[in-house]
Amino acid sequence: MSDSPARPPISRYPVPKLAELPDDIRTRIQAVQEKSGFIPNVFLALAHRPDEFRAFFAYHDALMDKPGGLSQAEREMIVVATSAANQCHYCVIAHGAILRIRARDPLIADQVAINWRKADISARQKAMLAFAMKISQHSQDIQEADFQHLGELGFSDDDIWDIAAISAFFGLSNRMANFMSMRCNDEFHLLGRVPRQG
Amino acid sequence: MSDSPARPPISRYPVPKLAELPDDIRTRIQAVQEKSGFIPNVFLALAHRPDEFRAFFAYHDALMDKPGGLSQAEREMIVVATSAANQCHYCVIAHGAILRIRARDPLIADQVAINWRKADISARQKAMLAFAMKISQHSQDIQEADFQHLGELGFSDDDIWDIAAISAFFGLSNRMANFMSMRCNDEFHLLGRVPRQG
Amino acid sequence: MSDSPARPPISRYPVPKLAELPDDIRTRIQAVQEKSGFIPNVFLALAHRPDEFRAFFAYHDALMDKPGGLSQAEREMIVVATSAANQCHYCVIAHGAILRIRARDPLIADQVAINWRKADISARQKAMLAFAMKISQHSQDIQEADFQHLGELGFSDDDIWDIAAISAFFGLSNRMANFMSMRCNDEFHLLGRVPRQG
Amino acid sequence: MSDSPARPPISRYPVPKLAELPDDIRTRIQAVQEKSGFIPNVFLALAHRPDEFRAFFAYHDALMDKPGGLSQAEREMIVVATSAANQCHYCVIAHGAILRIRARDPLIADQVAINWRKADISARQKAMLAFAMKISQHSQDIQEADFQHLGELGFSDDDIWDIAAISAFFGLSNRMANFMSMRCNDEFHLLGRVPRQG
Amino acid sequence: MSDSPARPPISRYPVPKLAELPDDIRTRIQAVQEKSGFIPNVFLALAHRPDEFRAFFAYHDALMDKPGGLSQAEREMIVVATSAANQCHYCVIAHGAILRIRARDPLIADQVAINWRKADISARQKAMLAFAMKISQHSQDIQEADFQHLGELGFSDDDIWDIAAISAFFGLSNRMANFMSMRCNDEFHLLGRVPRQG
Amino acid sequence: MSDSPARPPISRYPVPKLAELPDDIRTRIQAVQEKSGFIPNVFLALAHRPDEFRAFFAYHDALMDKPGGLSQAEREMIVVATSAANQCHYCVIAHGAILRIRARDPLIADQVAINWRKADISARQKAMLAFAMKISQHSQDIQEADFQHLGELGFSDDDIWDIAAISAFFGLSNRMANFMSMRCNDEFHLLGRVPRQG
Repeated sequence: MSDSPARPPISRYPVPKLAELPDDIRTRIQAVQEKSGFIPNVFLALAHRPDEFRAFFAYHDALMDKPGGLSQAEREMIVVATSAANQCHYCVIAHGAILRIRARDPLIADQVAINWRKADISARQKAMLAFAMKISQHSQDIQEADFQHLGELGFSDDDIWDIAAISAFFGLSNRMANFMSMRCNDEFHLLGRVPRQG
Repeated sequence: MSDSPARPPISRYPVPKLAELPDDIRTRIQAVQEKSGFIPNVFLALAHRPDEFRAFFAYHDALMDKPGGLSQAEREMIVVATSAANQCHYCVIAHGAILRIRARDPLIADQVAINWRKADISARQKAMLAFAMKISQHSQDIQEADFQHLGELGFSDDDIWDIAAISAFFGLSNRMANFMSMRCNDEFHLLGRVPRQG
Repeated sequence: MSDSPARPPISRYPVPKLAELPDDIRTRIQAVQEKSGFIPNVFLALAHRPDEFRAFFAYHDALMDKPGGLSQAEREMIVVATSAANQCHYCVIAHGAILRIRARDPLIADQVAINWRKADISARQKAMLAFAMKISQHSQDIQEADFQHLGELGFSDDDIWDIAAISAFFGLSNRMANFMSMRCNDEFHLLGRVPRQG
Repeated sequence: MSDSPARPPISRYPVPKLAELPDDIRTRIQAVQEKSGFIPNVFLALAHRPDEFRAFFAYHDALMDKPGGLSQAEREMIVVATSAANQCHYCVIAHGAILRIRARDPLIADQVAINWRKADISARQKAMLAFAMKISQHSQDIQEADFQHLGELGFSDDDIWDIAAISAFFGLSNRMANFMSMRCNDEFHLLGRVPRQG
Repeated sequence: MSDSPARPPISRYPVPKLAELPDDIRTRIQAVQEKSGFIPNVFLALAHRPDEFRAFFAYHDALMDKPGGLSQAEREMIVVATSAANQCHYCVIAHGAILRIRARDPLIADQVAINWRKADISARQKAMLAFAMKISQHSQDIQEADFQHLGELGFSDDDIWDIAAISAFFGLSNRMANFMSMRCNDEFHLLGRVPRQG
Repeated sequence: MSDSPARPPISRYPVPKLAELPDDIRTRIQAVQEKSGFIPNVFLALAHRPDEFRAFFAYHDALMDKPGGLSQAEREMIVVATSAANQCHYCVIAHGAILRIRARDPLIADQVAINWRKADISARQKAMLAFAMKISQHSQDIQEADFQHLGELGFSDDDIWDIAAISAFFGLSNRMANFMSMRCNDEFHLLGRVPRQG
């Protein structure tokens, strides 16, 4: 756009250089870079505060990398729906890409972000997202009937904890990203949009 | 997704065949098809009611194809921001594609849809969208001060009418698309995401 | 009131004179004037933009003058309830008058405008208005269960389209009237309030 | 309406007969009847609980019949705006009639009820109603700046108390009327709509 | 706190001295002082307007001191839940103390104020509070089904009136206390927190 | 209460015994027990998931135990205000106790929890809480003007990060506690309510 401003920084706060970072953080970032081909900005933006960085990613890994009843695509659906409700650029775009890849579906992330009720997902997945949204928007109203409803759909108590914790954790992430105007890497917009062949 | 339902229809209501349609409507649809390479589903879904179809597209054209102070990209920004607030699959995805093309910017539609306040657009464009959102969400609060504020940013009274009317018209469009679960053509998800070269 | 301001204009925008208008628009306005005894201000205010005027009234007529399962009074109930939720002076007052006349009931318009849940209308009509309000306020939540519920009350799929489209169209109308501070003709306040005799 | 239900009672609770009432309450009601030509239903509906009746009308009179800086029409504006926000049939219709009479203006009550921001009232009266609505909807946000703003417009501290107390008292009245489905006398719909002559 | 402001007054409005008050009001206040050991500030703050004071406490007594199906602790639960929703310092703290005393439970007031759905109260009491909150927040939605639900739980029609009237009356009280920044006596914070022995 | 249910458990999920816990977690819990005289339930409830426990408390310590421009009492104010908005029993009661102790003020926690705008805190602290609430409720609206406003009141960019991160982290904590109906230890209700002497 001719009158658009200069490209803004990836965070309102100072972004440390890799060389300045503590070893464990630099090592983690380099591992991600090797795997993804680029460094997702969230790693650089949060590295401004090393102790919070470590806790944030420890929490993230405890929820997103653990085994359990929810598929990896389902966990990403929770992230995308929660982040859309919180209007978080970074998380909708970056986790939308991951959702497309995990679900091998180029359409699903836009659908879940815009209106998960109308997305091409199962009724069981919609119940999962309805609960995640209740955690995100009205957690004070959670009651035993919510557990019973999910239980009847086959979610275990541990699955339900996962749904709640993922929604709650990304609520934290959304607020931090909104707060510092964390900018998403351009790469994420396109990732997973062209279905893989073969 | 292994447990996703069969692909749903493009509308909850019957979709007429081209051959069954009145001549003027079929002609219009064929012209769009020739230009775009496919028929956007909104044309087929609304053709269930020919009189409403004619009025809808006459209104659309009166707002979107007219000359005026707003660029075509700016009009699409209004459509995308309004449609995201109303959580309308069809309009966010289809007009997001048009916005990317009009603005020659592969990132802008996701940014405006998720949180227009953080998008890579000018302060003037953000004021335009703030007014469009006030029309969409709290039109009862519009007051003379809103006109003065936009006037100071260089918007003419006719530009302001355009902003309001585009937001109001797509509010109608969003409600109809949500109501009939209008499905977006797959093509729109990818259009305009790869910047043109040369 | 001694300290009330001078009577405001019927629109914040210029209002064209009849003689200046395109023939088709002038003819339509004169027909209304002949029938009603006065020109409802909406015709004059929207004539500022002839193309939008034509599309607006074509849409209006396609929804309000067509045959179908909803009575004319029921269509006006939808207009009044939607317009009250959007706090639109023009539409509540003018269509309130039409509702009183169509329903031959001098009390109904005030009741529907203030709180349709408590109005002297049937349970079926309340279900119709509940759906119209969902279209107006939360169209993203519309789901198949809404159709089933209305179907059980005897509404056909075409009736349901009518309810949705009337609510959506008057949502557009309300936003435009709020935006330009469209003023209602004084005559509407009193029309239909004294029951006809004989 | 052919399918409308039988006319509902004036309250969901038993309505005492005049002869059964304590003397002071019957006397008060007869005085109102003599003055108005009919008994407003609120007197009969609340007489179900004599002690609450006495406190209610003592409070009412302390606020509405006292001298002070607010005109009687202005007090009724507060009642109508508050009651419309609370969607109370009885209070909007009955006090709308009183507002029309007090203000000698057949249009004002509909305007204030639908959207007080657009009514034919002064800027000072709009500030008064904005404060009344803040009391009604967000009293927890009232702060010293609100008092300063009203003071600059010429409202005394005692006027401000009146605005707040009238809005708070009718918030109570609205809730009770909504709760018991208190029905408004038909007479109120028409009162004050035809300007007096001479 | 080293940087906290000086202790604010008990009301933004003038607080009369006991000697200046009408006899009936002074007598009432002295009776409360004798019973409680101190004068609750609400008596002094409202005495600025003697007629409103009399109506306010007459209403209060008619609701809170009458016999009926609701226990005194249950009435105070309604007060605390309503007042917490309205964010009223005075009423949450003072009536929280009374609730602790009436229920002989040092924990209950904090629980009800923060989230009554999670409080150590019976399911029947939660239904009572859900209805009180509907009165307070959405009285326009009250319908016959609400009465039936409470009836099935054993509440009589007169009990239901009590629930509604207590919630509505304290909604008035909350708005007045918020408006004048009525300050709660320090004593209330601690009252009833240490369970009585013996 | 005679009809209150049996005392509910401290979490809806299984609570591990100390002896079953990993050494690092048991050691941490025993250290808290030694210092406080009892084990706050949050440690036992979250120990159901050791990895999440470790990340949660690492995050907590990184925000609450670090040096910085915010006093410890101010950090607790943020926790209490955020947790009250999220209606979280555990966090309002437990951190209310810590706030009373840190601020050496027996009244402050109730005031901040009920309505921080009316609490006995400085204008600067109210601005801090207004920002924390914006993070908690509308983080999508955060803009540069918010930073400027806080900067003018003497908050550094690092202080502002602390405010945001504390509000965001306790938003996570509130959602988890609401979700599992985490019960607060009785001790917290009374802690810090009697000012220390000497």
